[in-house]
Formats: sequence, C-alpha cells, structure tokens
Amino acid sequence: MKILIVLAHPEPKSFNYAMYLTAIKTLKENGHEVKTTNLYAINFNPVYDRSNFTTVKNPDFLKLQIEEIHAAEMNNSYVAETKIEQEKVEWCDLMIWQFPLWRFAPPAILKGWTDRIFTSGRFFKDGGYYENGTLRGKKALLSVTTGSPAKTYTKDGYHGDIYGVLRPVNRGILECVGFSVLEPEVNYSVAHLTDEDRKTVLKKWSNRLKNIFNENKINVGKY
Amino acid sequence: MKILIVLAHPEPKSFNYAMYLTAIKTLKENGHEVKTTNLYAINFNPVYDRSNFTTVKNPDFLKLQIEEIHAAEMNNSYVAETKIEQEKVEWCDLMIWQFPLWRFAPPAILKGWTDRIFTSGRFFKDGGYYENGTLRGKKALLSVTTGSPAKTYTKDGYHGDIYGVLRPVNRGILECVGFSVLEPEVNYSVAHLTDEDRKTVLKKWSNRLKNIFNENKINVGKY
Repeated sequence: MKILIVLAHPEPKSFNYAMYLTAIKTLKENGHEVKTTNLYAINFNPVYDRSNFTTVKNPDFLKLQIEEIHAAEMNNSYVAETKIEQEKVEWCDLMIWQFPLWRFAPPAILKGWTDRIFTSGRFFKDGGYYENGTLRGKKALLSVTTGSPAKTYTKDGYHGDIYGVLRPVNRGILECVGFSVLEPEVNYSVAHLTDEDRKTVLKKWSNRLKNIFNENKINVGKY
Repeated sequence: MKILIVLAHPEPKSFNYAMYLTAIKTLKENGHEVKTTNLYAINFNPVYDRSNFTTVKNPDFLKLQIEEIHAAEMNNSYVAETKIEQEKVEWCDLMIWQFPLWRFAPPAILKGWTDRIFTSGRFFKDGGYYENGTLRGKKALLSVTTGSPAKTYTKDGYHGDIYGVLRPVNRGILECVGFSVLEPEVNYSVAHLTDEDRKTVLKKWSNRLKNIFNENKINVGKY
C-alpha cells in the first residue's frame, strides 16, 4: 500500500523523530511504498496568503475560497510546494501525522500545511463532505506525543478526554474531507521516557504498523 | 479597561478586518485603552523553533519546554517579537481574537502565535492551570467568521455544534492558562453578506462591545 507520513517536529533527536523513522523503516520493510513530508526539514511556510497561488482571480479583494476554486479550474495553479503536497495526499492509501500536541492542537507548521493544501475545488467540493468527501476510501492516523501525563487526559483529568482533544483534527479536518480515522497512537510525557522506555514504545509502534491495514476506523464522535 | 485585539486575516477589505476596525473604534470611543496585533501586517512568523530564544540551555537537544523554563529564568530571554506579544497579553484585561475559521481552527499564523507566546515558565507554571492559571482574572473572546452557513454548525448539522468546534481553543488554550471565556461572536457565511448585512452585523458588534465588561464567563464544557 501507499503511505504518506507527515512530521512536525524541529529536533532530529526527539522522540517524535524516532517515531517517524520507525514508521518509515517498518512500513518499507513490510513492502509498502512510503512518501514523507518532514515539515521543519523542508522549511515549510505555514502562512496562507496570495503566495500560495500562481494565478489571480480577483487582484483587488483576496477571498481565499474564490482563489482556490479558480486555481482548481486553472489546472491546479498552486505554487510547486503546495502541488507536491496535494499530490502526495491524493496518492496515499494511509496518511500518518507525527506531531507533539502543542496547546492541545498540532504545531502551527502542520496547521498551516492543512490550511494551504486542503483546498476548495480540489479536496473540498460542494456537497463533498464526510462520507461524501473526495478522499473517501483513504485512512488517516494521528501519532501524537504529549507533555502532560496520561491521567490528565482522561474524562476526570484536568485536560479532559484525549479523544475530545483530538476530535477537531479527526473530525474537522480528516473525516470532513473523507478519510477514515484509525485509533490515534498517543504517547504521554515523552520527555520523561528512559532509553529503555523509548525502545519499548518504538517496538510497540512498529508492531502495530505491521498490521495497520487490518485496522478498522474508529468513531471519533461529533461535537 | 485594557484590551488586546489580535487579528489573523490577510485581506484589509475582508469582513474580519472590518470587525477588527470596528472593535478598535468602539472600545477607544468608550474610554478604553486598546493595543493590537495584526498578525499578517507584522508578518508574524508562526514556526516555533530555536529562533524564539536568545539563550540556549541545551545546544545538543532542543526540548522546547526546557528552553522555555530557562528563558523565564534568564529574565525572559525571548526574541523581541515574542516578548512584545507576551507583555501585551499580560497587560490586557480582555483579549479578543478576530479570525476566520479555517479547517475548524484558527489560521496557522494565530496558532503559531500561541505556540510561541504561551510558554512554560512564564504563562504555564507547575500546577497553574485553569482556575489556578497565571492569567486568571482576565477575560477572552473569540470573534469568528465561517464559510459554511449557521445550520451546518448545529448539533444536527454536518459540522456539529459550533461550541464544540471552538472548545479546543476556549478550553485548551484560553481557560487552560486562566482566562475567563466570554460568549463567542460568530458570524456565518460572511462571503455572502450584502453591504447592508455587513453594516447591521458591525453595528451589533459595536453595541455588544459597549457593555462587554458587564458580561460573565460562559461554560465552554469539557471534553
């Protein structure tokens, strides 16, 4: 199968990076095709404005959705950086995002990747949401690390249920455009892992990925 | 009172911009002090990495939380861009964010502002979350525009309840650091407003702001 792995972490020695490298290695060893987007390494610009387009529909008033639909009609007239990412998303059967939870959401560099890539006219079309989304049939998985411990991300913990924290991404971005969402891979308090702990967690991740295409989508809930 | 207004929109002719200008004008006319952060206008860089700091705790392994706590100990050794924003947040009694909902969340330029500004050691301290948050006593308000119509952001609509969509920001960022959250100002399908509609909505916003300091916090819910 075809897998796209998107990484949003600035430190090559980080646990996120190790999870990313483990996923690449395991999936390739198991005969899959893997493409990657290492957002910090490619210095991805997450700020969405006119620079995302090579065409202009209305030079006097920037309405992004109008420009997006125009870009789709003009043979996807986005800048190369954006086109490459859109094509990877369309190419894959499974998309994995590897990121640390910052302020209960993906880092800005990853949020901006979705702002610029998941555009109207190409990914979002009239009526094409959720079960009718243009990317239906594809699967997606969030692999997340946290600073706070697991007990804080429970219904009675002070941050609340981790599924609720991740819902805006699972529901609002991934399901909205048609992805089937797999169980998130959540690792808590990774800054406090020992070397031995890290090996155990990476092994568990690798084992999971060997059978990832047998997994079914989860119910991410509605708001 | 002291109000900080943060704007995240690239187009000066946009409805978001008009809401922003209306808020500045109304609040000043009513005797308040107003500071602003127009993120696109100041070309704010939302990518969080080592460039946020002027000191280095560990040059070999970037752990952001460690660097943040070190920066706090070293007389807040952040770059000027960050310090200025931190001081504005600490200065204000009320913080208003004006932004379009992109992929069910703030634009990356605003997400990155929180990534870089709301740091451990300064805003987040051990045990200082929610009702014990360091910014308790301050109020915050999201003023949001959407592309989809109001009926899609209801419990039975296909996007689900707007309060649920906004919860990660209201709960995970604002309440988490101590803000009391006011009722969000939500304007739907703003691309389809007529000039007359715009005037009516701006007038309603202005009228609300005249009595904004009489409003009480809402219950944003938990996950």
